Amino acid sequence: MAKTNPARGMRDFLPADVRKREYVIGIIKQVYESYGFEPLETPAVENIETLMGKYGEEGNQLIFKILKRGEKLEEELQSFKVAELQSTETGSNSATPQLRNSANSLSDLALRYDLTVPLARVVADRRNDLPKFFKRYQIQPVWRADRPARGRFREFYQCDVDAIGSKSMVVEAELISAVSEILERLGFDAFSIYLNHRMLLSGVLMSAGVPESQHNDALVAFDKMDKIGPEGVGQELARRNVGSGILRFLDLTTSLSEKGLELFHQDGDAKSTLEKYNQFALQELAEFVGNNDSGLCGIGELEQVLSLTRNTHAYGHIELNPRLARGLSYYTGTIMEISLLPEDDDSDFDDFNVSLGGGGRYDGLIGMFGKEQIPACGFSLGLERILVVMDERGMFPPEIAESKPADVMVTIWSEESAGESLKLANEMRSNGLRVVTYPEADKLGKQFKYASQINVPWVCVLGESELAVNKVTLKNMQTGEQETIVRNEVAGRIK
Amino acid sequence: MAKTNPARGMRDFLPADVRKREYVIGIIKQVYESYGFEPLETPAVENIETLMGKYGEEGNQLIFKILKRGEKLEEELQSFKVAELQSTETGSNSATPQLRNSANSLSDLALRYDLTVPLARVVADRRNDLPKFFKRYQIQPVWRADRPARGRFREFYQCDVDAIGSKSMVVEAELISAVSEILERLGFDAFSIYLNHRMLLSGVLMSAGVPESQHNDALVAFDKMDKIGPEGVGQELARRNVGSGILRFLDLTTSLSEKGLELFHQDGDAKSTLEKYNQFALQELAEFVGNNDSGLCGIGELEQVLSLTRNTHAYGHIELNPRLARGLSYYTGTIMEISLLPEDDDSDFDDFNVSLGGGGRYDGLIGMFGKEQIPACGFSLGLERILVVMDERGMFPPEIAESKPADVMVTIWSEESAGESLKLANEMRSNGLRVVTYPEADKLGKQFKYASQINVPWVCVLGESELAVNKVTLKNMQTGEQETIVRNEVAGRIK
Repeated sequence: MAKTNPARGMRDFLPADVRKREYVIGIIKQVYESYGFEPLETPAVENIETLMGKYGEEGNQLIFKILKRGEKLEEELQSFKVAELQSTETGSNSATPQLRNSANSLSDLALRYDLTVPLARVVADRRNDLPKFFKRYQIQPVWRADRPARGRFREFYQCDVDAIGSKSMVVEAELISAVSEILERLGFDAFSIYLNHRMLLSGVLMSAGVPESQHNDALVAFDKMDKIGPEGVGQELARRNVGSGILRFLDLTTSLSEKGLELFHQDGDAKSTLEKYNQFALQELAEFVGNNDSGLCGIGELEQVLSLTRNTHAYGHIELNPRLARGLSYYTGTIMEISLLPEDDDSDFDDFNVSLGGGGRYDGLIGMFGKEQIPACGFSLGLERILVVMDERGMFPPEIAESKPADVMVTIWSEESAGESLKLANEMRSNGLRVVTYPEADKLGKQFKYASQINVPWVCVLGESELAVNKVTLKNMQTGEQETIVRNEVAGRIK
Repeated sequence: MAKTNPARGMRDFLPADVRKREYVIGIIKQVYESYGFEPLETPAVENIETLMGKYGEEGNQLIFKILKRGEKLEEELQSFKVAELQSTETGSNSATPQLRNSANSLSDLALRYDLTVPLARVVADRRNDLPKFFKRYQIQPVWRADRPARGRFREFYQCDVDAIGSKSMVVEAELISAVSEILERLGFDAFSIYLNHRMLLSGVLMSAGVPESQHNDALVAFDKMDKIGPEGVGQELARRNVGSGILRFLDLTTSLSEKGLELFHQDGDAKSTLEKYNQFALQELAEFVGNNDSGLCGIGELEQVLSLTRNTHAYGHIELNPRLARGLSYYTGTIMEISLLPEDDDSDFDDFNVSLGGGGRYDGLIGMFGKEQIPACGFSLGLERILVVMDERGMFPPEIAESKPADVMVTIWSEESAGESLKLANEMRSNGLRVVTYPEADKLGKQFKYASQINVPWVCVLGESELAVNKVTLKNMQTGEQETIVRNEVAGRIK
C-alpha cells in the first residue's frame, strides 16, 4: 500500500480549511484593491540564477532546487563521473566541496522562495509594460526547505504588497494604512506597527561609536532581541567583537522604553499617548545623532510617515522602535513590523512568534536585475500566522466557521424519479441557492443522515406523492420541522 | 546584468492577465459551489513515489523532480561515485542506465503533475475526515516538463471537479450539467460534450474480433484520430499489428457519422435532432455488441446519463462518440470530452486543439493508495485554453477587458497638503470606492497624464483653494469636464 501523507512540512487543506484561507485572502485582496494595488502572479518555478545569492548563505541552502532533465542531466552526471575519477587519481580524499559544486550544476530551476525577488525581476523585465508607479499585490505560496516546526511549514502563503517607482513617504503611509485596515477588518484591534529606519540605525550606531564595519553584526544581534533578550544580545555582540560603543546605544533604547512606560501610566487616551511617545523618541534620537547626515535623513522620513498617517487607519498603531532591525539585507530606508499583542486567554502565545508580517524600503534590489535603479517599498503579511491566531481566538464569522457545503440537499426517491430530483436542484440553483443532490436512490433515513453529516440546513424530499401534486416536502434540519409546499415556492422559502 | 525572463515555458501574469484569469476562475468556482462541490487544496510538492508510475512512461519523464538536500544529497553523490568507480573497474562502457538510476535516487520530491492523483491520495489518507460522498473542486497549477508550444506551457492551471464514493450515473449527469453551465455562463454556446464508455469500447472491440490484448494499442491509435485522421489511424493500427477485426469497428463508426449527417440535414430543432442521433447510435451499438456483457453494461449507463441530463444544462450538448478513447489509462467507465465548435472568424483554430477539457470515471485509482476501493468520477477544465479562446473572440465583459486599477485617483497638491489627500482617499474608500493616490507632489499635468496612462476614469484635485472651502475639483477623464463639489458628496457623484 502506498504512502498517503503529504510531503514533510506541507499540508492538504480540506474544504473547511480552504474556506477560512479564502475568507482571509478575500479581505486582504479587497483592501489592497481599494488602495489601487493591482494583482500580479509569477511562476512557482524560477531560473535558479534568479534566486541564488539574493537571500544570503542560509537562504541559498533553503531553496528547493529542481533536477535537470533528459540529456542535460546525463551530461552533468557524465562530467561529474569524469571529475570524480580525476580527483580519485590525484589522491584527493575529501570530495565534499566538489560534490557541492556538482549538486549545483545538477539543477537549473528552483522553487520561488519569496515574492519580492520575482517582483524585482518582473519590474526589470517588463518596465515598458508597467506604469511609472506600479502598485501591486501578490498572494501566492513560497517554498523553503526549512526544518518544519509549529507554525513553520515548507509551503506557505505570503501576501505581499509593494509600490514601485517613488521615493515619497506617501508610499509608506499608504502601505501601513492598508495593512492596518486589513487587520481591523479581520477583527484584530490590539496590534502595533513598529517603525524604524535603516539610515537612522546606521546614524545612531555611528554616533554611538560603532565602526561601520561592525554595523551588520550589530544589526544581526539586535534582530534577535525578542528571542534571546537583552542579555543574550549582549553576549552575541561580544561574541561578534562589536566594540563597547554599542553600550551607549543600548542605554538610549532603555531610556526610551522607560520614558514610554512612564507616558503610558499617565492618564489620557492611548492613541495620543503613543503619539507623544513617538515625538519624544524622535527628539531623543535627533539629539543622539547630532549632525550625522544619515541619521538626520532617517529621522526626517520617519517624521513624514508619522505626519502622513495621522488621518489613516494606521493612526494609533505606529510605534517607533529604534531597536527594530529586520533580517533581510536589501532594506535601505524605512523598516516596519507588525506585532500582535497577546490576549488574556491566548493559550500558549509565548512559544509562538507574534509578528504577523513586516516590510520596508529597498531602493537597490530592482537595480540588481535591470539597468535602472528603481525605488521600491513593500510589506509582506504571513497568511499562516494570521490563520493560527484567528483560529485560536475564534475570530471567523459563523458562516465561515460552520463551513456549510450547500444551502439545501435534494433527496432521490427512486431511480425513476432521479431525473426529476436533478431538475428540481437546477431550478433552485437558478434561484441562487447552492444545492447538493444525494447521488443515489437510497433509504430516506440514510439520506437525512448524510445531510446532517455534511451540515446542510435544509432537505427537499421529492417523493411520488409530492411529484403527483407538484409539491415538495421541506425539512428544517435544525428543528426537524417538515412542511409540504408548492414546488416553485421552495427556493424563496429557504432564502 | 542578470537575466530577467521567467523560466522557459512559464509566464508572468500582469494585472490585466490576472483579472481575466480570476474572472474565469470566479465563474467556475461559483457554478461548482452551486452544485455542492467543496474546495480542496493540496501542496505543489508531492513525495516522488506518490507520482511515479501513475501517468505512464511518458508521464514519468515529464515530472519535475526536486533535488535532495544537505547530507542526504551528499550521501547519494558519494554512493554514486562509488558505484561509478566499480563500473569503471569492471570495464563497463555505457553508464547510461546506471546514470538514470542515480538520477532517480537524487530526488525525493516532485512537482504536482495533475490534480487527480493528489485527490486520490488525500481521499485514502483522510477517509474518516471526509463525508461518504465527497464532492470537491480544485483549481491549482500543475507542472510538466513538456516542450513548450503555442497554448502549451510548463506551468498551467487545471480546474478539476470530482465526486467520490458513488457509482450512480447521477454523478455523471451532475458533472456534465455543471460543466455545461460554466461554459454557458462564460458565453460559449456552440460546444459539444462527447460521451463514450470504456466498457462499451471494450465490448465493441471484442465484438469486432479485436483480441483483448490489442485493445490498448487500438485505443491509443483512436485517441489520435483528431490529430492524424482516419488514414493515419489505419497506419498506426497496422504498425501496432492490430488485427483486421478493427475494420468492422471503423465501418460502424463511419456509418454512424453518416446517419448523423443525414439527421442534421433534416428539418427540426438541433437539440431534438441530437437526441434522435444519440438514440439511434445507442441502438446500433447495442445491436453490434449483441450479448457482450461489458458492452451492454456500458450502453445501460450511457442511457442513464442521457436520460438524467434531459432537464439540465447539458441537454442539447451531449453527443455519443463511439470513437472517443481518452488517453489516460485509469478510466474504467464513462469518458467525456468537451469540444468547442469553431466560429467563422476564429483566426487559426485549426492548429489549436479545441478540446477544453475532459474526464471520466476511475473506480480503481483511489484503491492504489488505500485499503479500500472507492468509486470516483471527475472532470478537468483547462483554464489556459478557455482564456486563449475567450481572448481571441473578445468574450470578456467590458469591466474585465478594460482592467481599471481604481475608480478614482487623488492628486497631491503640495508636500504640506499630502496628508489631506490621503485623508480624502480614505474617506472615499470607506464609501466603497477603489482609490489610488498619486504618490508625490508633482506638476498637475503629470498627475493627469499618469491617471490616463493607468486608465482611471475620475481624478480628484485637492488644491489650496479647494481645501480652503472644503471642496474638491472632480475631473471626468473621458469627457475632460471638471466640476467643483462639496467634499463629502464626491464619492456619491463618482458612483
